[in-house]
Amino acid sequence: MAINYPAGTRRTSATANQVRIGKTTKKALTFGRRGMGLEEEINLANTYYLANQLAVIHKKPTPITIVKVDYPARSAAKITEAYFKQASTTDYNGVYQGRYIDFDAKETKNKTSFPLKNFHEHQIAHLAHVLAQNGIGFVIIKFTTRDETFVYPAKHLIKQWQLRQGKQSIPYLEIARDSFRVPNSLNPSLDYLKAVDQYFQQLD
Amino acid sequence: MAINYPAGTRRTSATANQVRIGKTTKKALTFGRRGMGLEEEINLANTYYLANQLAVIHKKPTPITIVKVDYPARSAAKITEAYFKQASTTDYNGVYQGRYIDFDAKETKNKTSFPLKNFHEHQIAHLAHVLAQNGIGFVIIKFTTRDETFVYPAKHLIKQWQLRQGKQSIPYLEIARDSFRVPNSLNPSLDYLKAVDQYFQQLD
Repeated sequence: MAINYPAGTRRTSATANQVRIGKTTKKALTFGRRGMGLEEEINLANTYYLANQLAVIHKKPTPITIVKVDYPARSAAKITEAYFKQASTTDYNGVYQGRYIDFDAKETKNKTSFPLKNFHEHQIAHLAHVLAQNGIGFVIIKFTTRDETFVYPAKHLIKQWQLRQGKQSIPYLEIARDSFRVPNSLNPSLDYLKAVDQYFQQLD
Repeated sequence: MAINYPAGTRRTSATANQVRIGKTTKKALTFGRRGMGLEEEINLANTYYLANQLAVIHKKPTPITIVKVDYPARSAAKITEAYFKQASTTDYNGVYQGRYIDFDAKETKNKTSFPLKNFHEHQIAHLAHVLAQNGIGFVIIKFTTRDETFVYPAKHLIKQWQLRQGKQSIPYLEIARDSFRVPNSLNPSLDYLKAVDQYFQQLD
């Protein structure tokens, strides 16, 4: 399996050695990411993109409803009662090469399909709004047991959602067919903008 | 003072009457907005833009650090200890006419200048990152006692910040000179995209 280096990656001799091992590289990569969730991988990629001036993409804070706040003397305001509330948008957005980028990230242990119940109606509606404004909308879908991650354009997700009325699952093969696969990489471990680049090429 | 109608505004006969009153219109507008903060006005505008498919712009949730969560049986998870944390970006972003839009909003009671202490270093840095990615960055500045609101491009703000080393104030006259003024309107009461349109015209 080919290793794609992101442009501008500073390779340490350690990682260069790792690559030379050849056959064991995939295993080493998987080991390196062990226990790291998809969200954490995306956050690390975003930090890398920001530091290297490749893109400005942030995860939005978790929306909560604050009910009670204490203001103790001489210390920081303390929230003592608050509740999680439903997000009205996706989790990530930002700008890449002058384009508006908007996406959510989901992972599944399923091998053959992706359950649509992972999405909420309002997320689908938000992505449709983004497309209507000529923004770039997609979801990053990771099949954890396959260790495969895809950039799946929102237009396909919206079509599937309508077709299956928000229920059932999208077959793995259809996602693989309509997506841009995130190539393996070392730093960042999930270089998803590489897949977005391919998407852009198709759009231009 | 001329009233600019946003495209696609549905005027009720009541507002049409209001306009015909002529001289008292400005007063009526001010009265209608009485007690409404800048943030609330921007949120109403964003709701209007979304409903009329003009733009997709949202305020980001307030970032907090959650320390303790209770999970009472048969009811929603309750956050019992959390703290406000410094935002690493601006408050608003989204997509308008295919362009990435990113801004913060500030109001002041000062008549002759805008104090730079209203901004944090990281907000200025974030806006600089956005500009580097060809995004559209600005701040909406409202002089409340003048009832004047401006879309002030980030490039000017960054220049002033560097010039004054994050201290002192930007003179009102310099802001007025370098900004795009938000015209008066009825629905939404702060139709700031009208000023952004003028900004785009200068860019194209």
